[in-house]
Formats: sequence, structure tokens, C-alpha cells
Amino acid sequence: MEKDFNSLIDSGDVLFMMLGAVMVFAMHGGFAFLEVGTVRKKNQVNALVKILVDFAISTLIYFFIGYAIAYGIFMYQPAKVLLADNQGYDLTHFFFLLTFAAAIPAIISGGIAERAKFWTQAFAAAIFVGIAYPLYEGMVWGQITFLGQEDSWLANLTGGVPFHDYAGSVVVHSFGGWIALTAVIVMGPRFGRWDSQGRSRPIPISNVPFMALGSWMLCTGWFGFNVMSAGTLQGISGLVAINSLFAMAGGVIAALLISKNDPGFIHNGALAGLVAICAGSDKVHPLGALVIGALAGIIFVKGFTWEQEKLKIDDVLGVWPLHGISGAWGGIACGIFGQEALGGMGQVSLLAQVIGTSFAIGIALAFGFTVYIVLDKTVGIRLEKEDEQRGSDLAIHNIESYPEDVTSRF
Amino acid sequence: MEKDFNSLIDSGDVLFMMLGAVMVFAMHGGFAFLEVGTVRKKNQVNALVKILVDFAISTLIYFFIGYAIAYGIFMYQPAKVLLADNQGYDLTHFFFLLTFAAAIPAIISGGIAERAKFWTQAFAAAIFVGIAYPLYEGMVWGQITFLGQEDSWLANLTGGVPFHDYAGSVVVHSFGGWIALTAVIVMGPRFGRWDSQGRSRPIPISNVPFMALGSWMLCTGWFGFNVMSAGTLQGISGLVAINSLFAMAGGVIAALLISKNDPGFIHNGALAGLVAICAGSDKVHPLGALVIGALAGIIFVKGFTWEQEKLKIDDVLGVWPLHGISGAWGGIACGIFGQEALGGMGQVSLLAQVIGTSFAIGIALAFGFTVYIVLDKTVGIRLEKEDEQRGSDLAIHNIESYPEDVTSRF
Amino acid sequence: MEKDFNSLIDSGDVLFMMLGAVMVFAMHGGFAFLEVGTVRKKNQVNALVKILVDFAISTLIYFFIGYAIAYGIFMYQPAKVLLADNQGYDLTHFFFLLTFAAAIPAIISGGIAERAKFWTQAFAAAIFVGIAYPLYEGMVWGQITFLGQEDSWLANLTGGVPFHDYAGSVVVHSFGGWIALTAVIVMGPRFGRWDSQGRSRPIPISNVPFMALGSWMLCTGWFGFNVMSAGTLQGISGLVAINSLFAMAGGVIAALLISKNDPGFIHNGALAGLVAICAGSDKVHPLGALVIGALAGIIFVKGFTWEQEKLKIDDVLGVWPLHGISGAWGGIACGIFGQEALGGMGQVSLLAQVIGTSFAIGIALAFGFTVYIVLDKTVGIRLEKEDEQRGSDLAIHNIESYPEDVTSRF
Repeated sequence: MEKDFNSLIDSGDVLFMMLGAVMVFAMHGGFAFLEVGTVRKKNQVNALVKILVDFAISTLIYFFIGYAIAYGIFMYQPAKVLLADNQGYDLTHFFFLLTFAAAIPAIISGGIAERAKFWTQAFAAAIFVGIAYPLYEGMVWGQITFLGQEDSWLANLTGGVPFHDYAGSVVVHSFGGWIALTAVIVMGPRFGRWDSQGRSRPIPISNVPFMALGSWMLCTGWFGFNVMSAGTLQGISGLVAINSLFAMAGGVIAALLISKNDPGFIHNGALAGLVAICAGSDKVHPLGALVIGALAGIIFVKGFTWEQEKLKIDDVLGVWPLHGISGAWGGIACGIFGQEALGGMGQVSLLAQVIGTSFAIGIALAFGFTVYIVLDKTVGIRLEKEDEQRGSDLAIHNIESYPEDVTSRF
Repeated sequence: MEKDFNSLIDSGDVLFMMLGAVMVFAMHGGFAFLEVGTVRKKNQVNALVKILVDFAISTLIYFFIGYAIAYGIFMYQPAKVLLADNQGYDLTHFFFLLTFAAAIPAIISGGIAERAKFWTQAFAAAIFVGIAYPLYEGMVWGQITFLGQEDSWLANLTGGVPFHDYAGSVVVHSFGGWIALTAVIVMGPRFGRWDSQGRSRPIPISNVPFMALGSWMLCTGWFGFNVMSAGTLQGISGLVAINSLFAMAGGVIAALLISKNDPGFIHNGALAGLVAICAGSDKVHPLGALVIGALAGIIFVKGFTWEQEKLKIDDVLGVWPLHGISGAWGGIACGIFGQEALGGMGQVSLLAQVIGTSFAIGIALAFGFTVYIVLDKTVGIRLEKEDEQRGSDLAIHNIESYPEDVTSRF
Repeated sequence: MEKDFNSLIDSGDVLFMMLGAVMVFAMHGGFAFLEVGTVRKKNQVNALVKILVDFAISTLIYFFIGYAIAYGIFMYQPAKVLLADNQGYDLTHFFFLLTFAAAIPAIISGGIAERAKFWTQAFAAAIFVGIAYPLYEGMVWGQITFLGQEDSWLANLTGGVPFHDYAGSVVVHSFGGWIALTAVIVMGPRFGRWDSQGRSRPIPISNVPFMALGSWMLCTGWFGFNVMSAGTLQGISGLVAINSLFAMAGGVIAALLISKNDPGFIHNGALAGLVAICAGSDKVHPLGALVIGALAGIIFVKGFTWEQEKLKIDDVLGVWPLHGISGAWGGIACGIFGQEALGGMGQVSLLAQVIGTSFAIGIALAFGFTVYIVLDKTVGIRLEKEDEQRGSDLAIHNIESYPEDVTSRF
């Protein structure tokens, strides 16, 4: 019976990881539809193809390079060996972690929408998923003892409490969001976003229902993103689930109140709350999660407006405030609301959170600017002006998003 | 090993509830798209925002008030305490029950679509989720010993068999549907729904694919709604899953046959079957479920037509026949098809089912009329005529559902 | 404690099967949207209704006839008996297998889109799900000892290794795809697909985002299709999950490269990879899965073009290359890449795979041609010309897919 029992434990873990992986995989569909709804119709096909193709490329590059950088594990053994222990737990664990890694290009995609060259963005995706992301991931969750391990210098500095990021506010979202910022800056704004006198001319989004569908797909999968970050079934924590819920609710309500009931802000406010809670979802009290999420909602609405109107950065989906800034806020917030004095679980260090988060931003900026400037100076990262104007769907994919409508026009 | 075993039991229960909660959470996306597809384009944004915001408001009000009314449990302890037993099972159980509570405003939303004031409907949602629903919920599933407990007067009356509602045909759907009826009556029909001579002028729906998408999202999540009502993994019953399937199939086929192949009736017929099976899904035979679902499909088609054409009630999504009447039918049907003589599991009382269901209707009508009449006489529950005519999207959210199309018109 | 332990095992199995069933059920929504996006607007409603109704009909016919043919099991006992052992495991197992069976008409639906008579296609669906599919299914997975059993003549022939199809590359996809081919041939092309001189006039698809949504829904559910084919929780294999992932990625990348970045080919390429991996997902190495998927992607792109442009077969969604040919490739590929020499798990026979796959094609063609030719000569399988021209939505369902737009035209 003990053997049977252990086999049940293993089976439960494989199922747990596989469900988590599928839920986060489905979030990529959410990324796609969030972008489809937010860009103009002439770029909807491109949004869909980018997300799916980047996911496929990420699968390969993370398998062959990235995973080994972060965790020092290669999986080239025969299938029998891969399956031998734990019914293939490592394989589903890889799958789960891949769906996180692949979020990096999905986040960037939303910032550079409507004007990026296809193959250059795919190549950049491969670099980030294959090298940059695993490097930082390894420092927090993996084999590169630096920020997140109990024997790292950082834990030493703070008296034993390392940088904590349960489900990736910083590792995934902030890291991806700050890389996206570099991409958007190097690429420059879409034609027509500001007129010749520099006056803002917001470009209308195409489809609120598709944008909302993307948000729903992301929100739903996010519970897998956070809860299954436990890694094993027996590590599951109901607190993580409910904190995700409360942060999402906080993001929705804050965005509702300060955006004058704008559907884009409200549906992205839910996401901002979820971005911010990942790091501390196992540490904070539900009411702490509510505050974290609400502040993330405000950060997104105010940050987006500031980014667009003051900084004049044409970040189409607002992925820098949504993932970059809200993610950084989440990393730091874990160090505040995780304190026992605020009802949290304790064993968090604000200093470690600030330092760990700063490293993410620093590394993301360094990698991001380097990659995009080099690509810009060599192969080019941006569509020709006329291609941008007729839309990336026709320019890249030779089709429009609603082909029948086009045909019947004539 | 026994400790390990108990920990596995707890983990399994947390996962079970969390999966159920996420599946029912995703149903709210389904409520949103069902409404998006059924209303006119000028009210699609409002449909999306209402559902998401009402869900967020429900999260808070049910946490702070509702859950305590129904179950006598407050969750204000520090995170450590919340997690201490069962890895936070209570938290995910709360999450699961919240997704049920939040269905009340989601159901109402479909009835009052295209003409409701935003903040008034949100306020009403808070009252229903915070007070009315938990009151009835507590009587059936919770601490208010009245209808569903084995030591209630009702069980006494029927010789020990209390009112039975496994997954909420009555507690959720009928209760919500009858409140919605009061809202629709107090609010009155949309402008133009009947002409000046009282002739019916059905308002065309906007988008069949979105309506169908909503139905698919609802059907898929419904299996979590019903199966996870077991409450614990070890309480799971395969009968509940298959009865849901058969009731859905029955609803589809009945609606197909009597509606002349109408997509709206067929996709809502699936839902009607699922509404009706919740109560007895653990009690009836699959063939009983098929009959219950088929009759619910007929009830919906005939009920909708009767409601609209005879009673002249402008219930936009037909939520009264769909949830209110089909739900009541489900409550009663459990007392019939649950009998052992009909292949059911037995231990059901038709009398208890009729009484329990009647209480739901009575309480829903009392709360509904009171709340909506008071709100109507004070702050108003309905948009100004001109706001209704240009659409709630522009009037409330200052944006249309397809902003790019609007801009490119000029 | 042993009793408790066994009860946990049972509960886990019921949950496992139920999750698998729901995931594959959700794929049917994916079938619907894949077709909605690919057909013209005037046939979108019909696509949605066909898939949902065929699923409901399949539920009944497979319960009453098909399941008994394949497995020799009737489930007419009282609910108590159905539940007695294993908490209703058999019921959820039936549910899971039904979602496979119902894929047969869903596959056919995509081939014959835009021109099929409603009731004839539904009647054909009942024959295939009730008789033809269970016959072949029983030969591979069930009680009809012929191809897949260790004591079958085929296993005898190959020295003990029977035909292996883990999750249905052949049993479901190839079988369905080859029946669809017969339907498409008997029915003939849509009016206008080739002009009077036989020149190809491709008919534009209506909606790339809906097509892509369908693909996402299918991909997501597919992990349930493959992983839950284990049948019990303790049979779960992480290898199956990751092989599905790699085959999907391979399909995407191959389709991208050879289709010049076409969204339809790329999103269907993912599906082709998944179709092909089902059979050997428990046998091959992830890199083998990558190759299998990539070749399936190529098969789909080249096969579709060849089918349409050379063979002049108007298979609207390309279900023959997608399911029929890629599925056959998957059956055969299992016999190649499953070999230990290629890193696979071994215990596969290429001969058995070729023979087993050939039987599927033979039986599908025989049943398909017989059923469709008889139906064509008697009740007719195709809409009247004028009905086809105004669209099956108006002709069959008396409504269009975007009714509000139609009304506002006038």
C-alpha cells in the first residue's frame, strides 16, 4: 500500500502541474484576444499569429537552452528515462515553467503591436526566452544562487530572508514589461499617434468584446498561474487562490472608480491586480491582496495615461504600466503586506523585495535595449511606413482579418 | 504516513474546490457574452462591464456580510490562522460559494439589459448578494435551520426528508430569476419593444456567435458548478456529471424540436436543461435527467414566448423562464425523478421540494419588489430616455463597442 | 485507513475522467468556432447549431447503442447501482468516451459546411456515432477483439504487439476525416467554388479571429483529450502532456514556414500536430513528437492545397487532410518514432500500425460512401441551390448571424 500511496502522490503531482500548464497555456489565447481587441482591424491577424508562433518558438528555445540555464537540467534522455521517476513529473513541470517563459514575448507583443517586423520580433523572443529570462529566473527560482535562494548573498544581507516571488509578479510580469518598454522606445510610436505639432491623437481600439474576451481568458487561467506555482499538489494553498481573487476584485473596482467606467481600464484593471498579487499571493492576507490589487488598478490607469500623454510612449496595450510597473509594485508589496503585523504570513523582507525587483528592472533594461538597438541598426525591427499604413495583416500575412467583408466590398 | 495521507486528502479538497471555483468564475464570462450577443451593439460594452464589476462587488459584499449570514463564519483572522487547518480549504470553499452568489446579479443583468442605470443596478446587486441571497442560502445549505437541514421544521413535516437542492436550481437560479422578474417589471420595457398600439416589435439581437460563445462558456463551467457542489473530493459523484450532460442534451433537443431550429432557443435550451438539473443531479437517473432537461427546454421556449407576447414583459435574455421557471421546475423535479421508483436514489420528498421552492419564489419576490420599487422612487433605476436611445455604452461608458468603426465612419 | 485510501483512489479517478470529459466537451465549442470563422457569414449560425445539436444527438445514440457495441456495457440500471462501485467512475468514463465519439460528426461538419441539409446530416451523425465509430472503436479499445487487443490476430501476426492508438489519431480523427471525405465527394462542391471553365475560385473565409478562437479552444482541450486517455489518475503520464505540446509546436512552425505566414494554415497546423500525436503520445520522445507534429503541419498545408487545387474537392475546413491524413500519419508515426532506437518507449509495431490504420480508412470509406450515397439517392443530403445561395442560416434557421445589422440596413 505504501508503494500505491507514493504512486498516487506522484500521479496527483503530474495532474496538478498538467492542469496548471494548460490553464496558463490558455492564457496565451487571452493575450492574443486582448491584443486583437485593442489593435486596429488591419493588425488583428498579426496579433493572433505572433502569439501562437512565439509560443511555439518559446517551446523549443526554452527546452533546448533556457530551462538548462535556469535549472541546470537537460532533458535529452530516452523517453523511458524521462518517465522513470514520478510518471514524468519533470516533463509537466517543464511545461508549466515554459508557459511562464513564453509570457515574455506575449507581453512584449502588446507593446509593439501594429508596427513590428515579424521575424525580428520572433528572433528577439527567442533571445529573451532562451537567455535573458532564464538568467533572471535562475537567480530567483533556479540554480543561479543570487536573489531567491536561502543561501544567496541577498538572504545573507537581510538576515536569512531571500527575495520572494511566489508566482512571478517580478520574474515574469515586471521583467517582460520592462523589456517591452525598451522595445517600444526603440521602435517609436505608430504613425499618426501624435500629429505634426505633437498633439496626442489616440488611436481607437477595434473591438471591445474581443478585448474583454482576452481579459476573461487571462483572468481564468491566472488561477492556475498562481495556485499551481506551488509545484506539488501537497504544497497547494487556498490562500493563493483567494488572494488572487481579491487582488483581481480590487483592480476592477479601483479602475472603475478612477477611470469613469471605461471598459478598457476595467478589464485591464483586473489584470493589473492579478499581476501585482503573484509575488505575495502565498504571504499576504486577503484584505492585503485587496489593497495591493486596488493600488495596481490605480497604477495602471494613472500610469497608462502618464505614459501616453506625458512621456509620449506609444505602448499600445499599456504593457509597461500593466506588467512592468504593476509587477514591480507587486514585488515590493509582498515585502510590506506579507509582514505579520499586517496579517501576513511573515518571513518577508522589504529590502530584499526592493533589491530583487530592482535587479529585474536593471537586467530587463540592459537586455532589452541591447537586443532592440542592435536589431534596429542591423536587420531593422519596424515595418516600412507603407506596410504599417496598410496594416501588418496584409503586409505580413497577405490576408485581412475579415476576408469575406473585403471581397464583398467590390 | 497517516499524516501524509491526511495532508493529501486536504490538498485534494483544496484543489477540488479551487477547480470548481475557477470553472464557475469562467461562467461569469459566459454570462457576459450571452448578454453581449443578445443585446444591441450599443449596449455590448455595458453588458461586459456590468458582469465584471458586479462580480467584484459581490466578492467584497459576500466576504464581509453575506457569507457570515449564511454560514456564521467570518474570515478576519490573520493569514496564518486562515491557512492553519486544511491548507486553506475554507478559503477556496468561500471562493466557490461566492461564484454562486455572484450569479444572482449576473442573472438579473440579462433581464434588465439595455436600459438600467449603472450604479443603481450595482447597488441592488450588493443588497441581493450581501443579504437576500445569503438569507435563503443559509436556510437551505447553511446555518439558518429552516428548509434544507435534517432538523428543520420542513424535514419534520415530511418525516425526515428536508428540502434538497444539490447545486442550486432553486437557491441560485430560481432565486435570481424571480428577482430579475421584479426588476424587469418595475423597470418597464425598452423603448420601441411594443409600438404605440401595443403591437410586439421584437428587437433583433446583435451577434449570434457571441451569444453562442456565452452559452459554451456557461455549459463548460456548469460541470464545475454541479460536480464540485460535492464540497470535497471524496464526495464526488460521477452521477452528477452525467446527469448534467443528459439534462443539457435534453434541453438542446427539445428546444430544437419546438423552436423550428432557432439558434437562440437551442443555445439557451442547453442552459435551461442545466438550470433544471442542478437540484437533483445527485438524485435522479440519467434518463430522468434527460426528461427533466427536455421539459426545461420546452419550458424555456414556451415560457419565453408567453412572457414576451402574452404578458408583455421585456425580459431581454429571458432570464425569468430560463432561471426562474426552469429553476423552480428543477427543484420540484428532484422530488419526482429522485424517487427510487423512477430509478432515482430516493430520500426525496415532493412536498419538501414544492415548499422549499415556493419559499425561494416568495422571498425573491418580496426582496426584489421592495428593493427595486424603493430604488425606482428614490434614485431611479432606469436610464433617461435619450441615454437609452443612444445606448448605454455611450451614455455610461463614453465609448462604443467597436470604436474604430465609429471613427472610420467620418 | 485502507478503505479511505481506496475511496480516495476512486474519487481521484472520477475527478480525472470528469475533467477530461469537460475539456474535450469544450473542444466541441472549438469545432464550432473554427467553422464559424471559416465559413461565410451566411452560414455561421448553421455551424454553431450543427455542432451543438450533433453533440446532443451523439449523447443519446452513443448511450443507447454505441457504447454497448464498443464495450458491451449497458447502463440502464437504477442510479444506485450505477453509483455503487467507484462513485460512478463508469459514468464519467462513458462521458469521456462520448466526447470522443461526438467528434466524428464535428469533423464531418467542417467538410460539408455551407451546403448540407440539416436533418440528413444529423441522421448520418447518428449512424456514425451509434454504429460505425463504435464498431471500429471496439476493435481497437473495446470488446471486439480484432486490432488493439493483445490476443487479437493482429497481435499474433506481429509477435504480440497489437495496433496502438493511445488517444485516437486513428480511432477518432482519421476515421472521422475519411468519412468526411466521402461526404464531401458525394455532396459536391459549393456553388461558385470553381467557375464554369473549372478555374479555382477560393471562397474567402469570414472571420479570422473566430477561426483562431476555435483553434485555441481545441488546442486547450486537447491536453485533456490526450492526457486523460490514461483512463485512471494513476495511469497519468507526463510524457503524454509534453508530447502533445511538442507536436503542436512542430505543427505551428512547419505551417508557418511553408505557408508564407498564413493565419489559417498556422492555426490549423497546431491542430494537425495534435491530431498526429494522439496515437503515440505515450510512446514517443518529445523530439519525436516535434518531428511528427512538424510533418503533420506540412501534410496539412500541402494536402489542403493538393486536395483543393488538384483533386478539386471542396472540403471547406480541410478536414480530410487535417484529421484524415494527419491522423493516419499519426497512426503510422507511432510505429516509427515509438521504437526504442529513436528514443521511444518501444513495444510498437510498424506493421500493426499500418494495418490498423488501413482498417480505419477502409471501414470509414465503406460506411461513409454507403450512408451518403443512400441518403443522397433517397432524402437528399444537399440544400436546394437557392437555399445554398441565400445561406443555410436563413434557409434552415430563419435568422442571420448578426440580425441587428440586417435590420438596420433597411
